[in-house]
Amino acid sequence: MLTIDMIQEARERIGSRIHRTPVLTSRQFNEAAGKEVFFKCENFQRAGAFKIRGATNKIQSLTAAEKQQGIAAFSSGNHAQAVALAGREAGVRVLVAMPEDAPAAKVAATRGYGAEVVFYDRQKQDREAFALDLAERERLVMVPPYDDYLILAGQGTCGLELLEDVPDLDCVLAPCSGGGLFAGVATAAKAVNSKIRCFPVEPDTADDTRQSLLRGERVSIPPPPTIADGLRVQIPGKLTFPIVQQLAEDVLTVTDEEIVATLRFMLFRMKLLVETSGVTAAAAVMFHKLPADVKRVGVVLSGGNIDPDLLRELI
Amino acid sequence: MLTIDMIQEARERIGSRIHRTPVLTSRQFNEAAGKEVFFKCENFQRAGAFKIRGATNKIQSLTAAEKQQGIAAFSSGNHAQAVALAGREAGVRVLVAMPEDAPAAKVAATRGYGAEVVFYDRQKQDREAFALDLAERERLVMVPPYDDYLILAGQGTCGLELLEDVPDLDCVLAPCSGGGLFAGVATAAKAVNSKIRCFPVEPDTADDTRQSLLRGERVSIPPPPTIADGLRVQIPGKLTFPIVQQLAEDVLTVTDEEIVATLRFMLFRMKLLVETSGVTAAAAVMFHKLPADVKRVGVVLSGGNIDPDLLRELI
Repeated sequence: MLTIDMIQEARERIGSRIHRTPVLTSRQFNEAAGKEVFFKCENFQRAGAFKIRGATNKIQSLTAAEKQQGIAAFSSGNHAQAVALAGREAGVRVLVAMPEDAPAAKVAATRGYGAEVVFYDRQKQDREAFALDLAERERLVMVPPYDDYLILAGQGTCGLELLEDVPDLDCVLAPCSGGGLFAGVATAAKAVNSKIRCFPVEPDTADDTRQSLLRGERVSIPPPPTIADGLRVQIPGKLTFPIVQQLAEDVLTVTDEEIVATLRFMLFRMKLLVETSGVTAAAAVMFHKLPADVKRVGVVLSGGNIDPDLLRELI
Repeated sequence: MLTIDMIQEARERIGSRIHRTPVLTSRQFNEAAGKEVFFKCENFQRAGAFKIRGATNKIQSLTAAEKQQGIAAFSSGNHAQAVALAGREAGVRVLVAMPEDAPAAKVAATRGYGAEVVFYDRQKQDREAFALDLAERERLVMVPPYDDYLILAGQGTCGLELLEDVPDLDCVLAPCSGGGLFAGVATAAKAVNSKIRCFPVEPDTADDTRQSLLRGERVSIPPPPTIADGLRVQIPGKLTFPIVQQLAEDVLTVTDEEIVATLRFMLFRMKLLVETSGVTAAAAVMFHKLPADVKRVGVVLSGGNIDPDLLRELI
């Protein structure tokens, strides 16, 4: 079970190692959305996304023996960079499994933080099996992207900070992939204010969490084509799903067009660079997916790492 | 003469009408620059730049009779949008003179704030003469971009806020075109801390202020080719130049390449959109133009309005 105490402990552990990111507002966004919106800017976070919170909490909690062994992760995205950075700061060996066709920029960024990268063939090899096998062979401790309470507690510190800065929110929204960010943020928010309403947001083609909540059990979907590359997980997490079931009022979904329009709005009007996945919760507010009686809205902008080539296309 | 009292009065007058913009920091920038840098984010300001400060202070100070008459400005850039917005909020008629070949986006933005736009032929007509003639004919009050103490006092509020948030700075840097922003910020900074060192920053091909300081009088330069379109003024202002002479320790210059590299760094590493002109002071720090004994540096990011086509080219 994930508790507010675990999130408070995480904050003690990681506070000096991460940024306390600012909460920003925009009159223009509020006018367009018809709500009063408070943006928690995790795009300004170290390594460019909220992921460093959970990774740091997990890695700093390892025993001396585990640190000696080193750690492994599988990710081609923000989790890889977060584990690499948090691992370097803890002085441990970091090995990251990436698909052979991962973007060169992401491979370079992960190596830039000092991690070793090993490649697998996405067509032939299952990434989780590959990484687990690798971790066992090299005697490394796996740092999973979400199914681990220390990871969830770390992500929850983002919600804690948001509620400290703006206590009187009607609701909070966070992008939802494996569900780690949402589970952490919603747990923190409900502990501070039990009446707060919590909404995970998914791309409409990557709505495994929405389908799972409707069905009452974890549903697996085919690889989703959404432009939000960080939200292409096909099934909710084992640990996260019961938390999402308990705390989510409803799952909101957005189209790729709504994601891109919101990304452009945030870039050119608000002067903030937010990645496609990171902007989904904001897109749900911008495109009026919230109930009418919700007024004061907290939105997590979960990351800002976007490939220059993709950005050039989108603007 | 521009005094701190005038800046304090401006703050009283405009405080509720503008954003108190945040001051942000970046470990990555600090590491690259070798300084501890505090960014005053006027790219988040209303209408996307610091210009709304001076325009609001000027327009809110008009007499009832002047407000009845309406106002005029000549600008194809941030000043136009600022005057249009501040004018609309004061309920006055606003007429803006722009060159016929002004970018459609800027014309639309200015009209979007409710201003009338009149065009002149840049090849055949002198813009200042055209605007003055127009103002006289239509009995409008001119709102100049910098040569007016109410404008300067308004821009100074930006420096006041920065020094309140970070009092123990060794120096402040601001982009310099007509000199209004620098004059206001430096006056405020010196009033708070007389030892603070103040540096205006110009593109190397638009160094009219640098040349003027060397010569001891206002020097006019040919139209500069710099990519920083907001800094293409050819001669320092009449009111601003003596203030710059008195308060500037030295003029720093940056190349277009340094401007673009810094813009890209701020966008992809810091997730901030800053326009070419707005990034020049940051570029001077990034490319080590400051004396070595300066440690804690305040930098004004003066605006974030950039054309999507230009941005696409630059990234």
